[in-house]
Amino acid sequence: MKYPGGIKRSNQSINRTSSQGTINNMMNRGMSLEEDINLTNKYYLEMDRAIIHKKPTPIQIVNVHYPKRSAAVITEGYFQRSSTTDYNGIYKGKYIDFEVKETKNKTLFPLANIHHHQMEHMKQTHAHGGISFVIIRFTHHDENYFIPIDRLIPIWDRQAAGMKSISYEKIKEIGEHIPFSYQARVDYLQIIERVYFNNGGNE
Amino acid sequence: MKYPGGIKRSNQSINRTSSQGTINNMMNRGMSLEEDINLTNKYYLEMDRAIIHKKPTPIQIVNVHYPKRSAAVITEGYFQRSSTTDYNGIYKGKYIDFEVKETKNKTLFPLANIHHHQMEHMKQTHAHGGISFVIIRFTHHDENYFIPIDRLIPIWDRQAAGMKSISYEKIKEIGEHIPFSYQARVDYLQIIERVYFNNGGNE
Repeated sequence: MKYPGGIKRSNQSINRTSSQGTINNMMNRGMSLEEDINLTNKYYLEMDRAIIHKKPTPIQIVNVHYPKRSAAVITEGYFQRSSTTDYNGIYKGKYIDFEVKETKNKTLFPLANIHHHQMEHMKQTHAHGGISFVIIRFTHHDENYFIPIDRLIPIWDRQAAGMKSISYEKIKEIGEHIPFSYQARVDYLQIIERVYFNNGGNE
Repeated sequence: MKYPGGIKRSNQSINRTSSQGTINNMMNRGMSLEEDINLTNKYYLEMDRAIIHKKPTPIQIVNVHYPKRSAAVITEGYFQRSSTTDYNGIYKGKYIDFEVKETKNKTLFPLANIHHHQMEHMKQTHAHGGISFVIIRFTHHDENYFIPIDRLIPIWDRQAAGMKSISYEKIKEIGEHIPFSYQARVDYLQIIERVYFNNGGNE
């Protein structure tokens, strides 16, 4: 079920899921990339390694009811498109900004999955010295890739020439494969260490 | 009108207000600190000086209605308390994180205005090398102060000893007065330049 603006229903239940803290299954299958990223961020926070949060989905509130003796109830609201990416925060003093996307497609990633304003936001944060990237999951292959924004920009800009997707092979070429680990399920800091801090990943 | 968790109704109408872009009055009076900060951030973004956004208020969504041929409607939702501060972003490669608070009190700022989890979040981001601070407006005096988090922590920690507020005089002593300017209405980057970049403010 999709909301307008590509917001998935699962966005709203993530807090509940990730606050349970128990992972019954070593495999990624069954959990969305967002859920895995939220668990990973929770783990990073608990380990005091990084402070990265998902931004709430913006809601346009039209009507609120105020019952006596209980909490205000929103009785009419609409999902809005975010003007930024879903995740940001800090790691080793650096500003971190990223978007996560998953596709069921086996052979390509449709560029329409990333909105223009999100791409512009990531370009801007990159230009200001932030670490900006996209994490793409190919659910069929059960693989996650970390694409630094500067490697994505040249491909993105080719959309004007009619390019509408990136092949799975191209993603493998320009992206960094993120290995699955038990606690940091999508351990993207390992990739940040290697790509931006010239560290092999063993801090 | 206050929502649970201290969320003010005005939060939800800010986007409309700030997108109008016209300021009819040189004075701060009449606009909330949040509205002024949102206009300031919009100006910084347009000038490409900093990329700082307000995070949406988190909403717990309980019921959604899906009418045919029109947008999904949230028919039951509740305001949630954010686990972080309201504003974050990047300036000159540095991670920026802050909270804004205003008080009508003439002589003191009640510490209860800042939630424990917000303070913990700012302490953490400061420890990770971010620039964390609180902007406090005394509406009666029509004055805005920038309090770097490391100057606030010693006072905050005295709450265990029964301290419940900071006097206006103390805020003037530990805080940096933020002058009003027309375009960057609450020009806090000027203070960041001086306090964190050792720059007099004239870049």
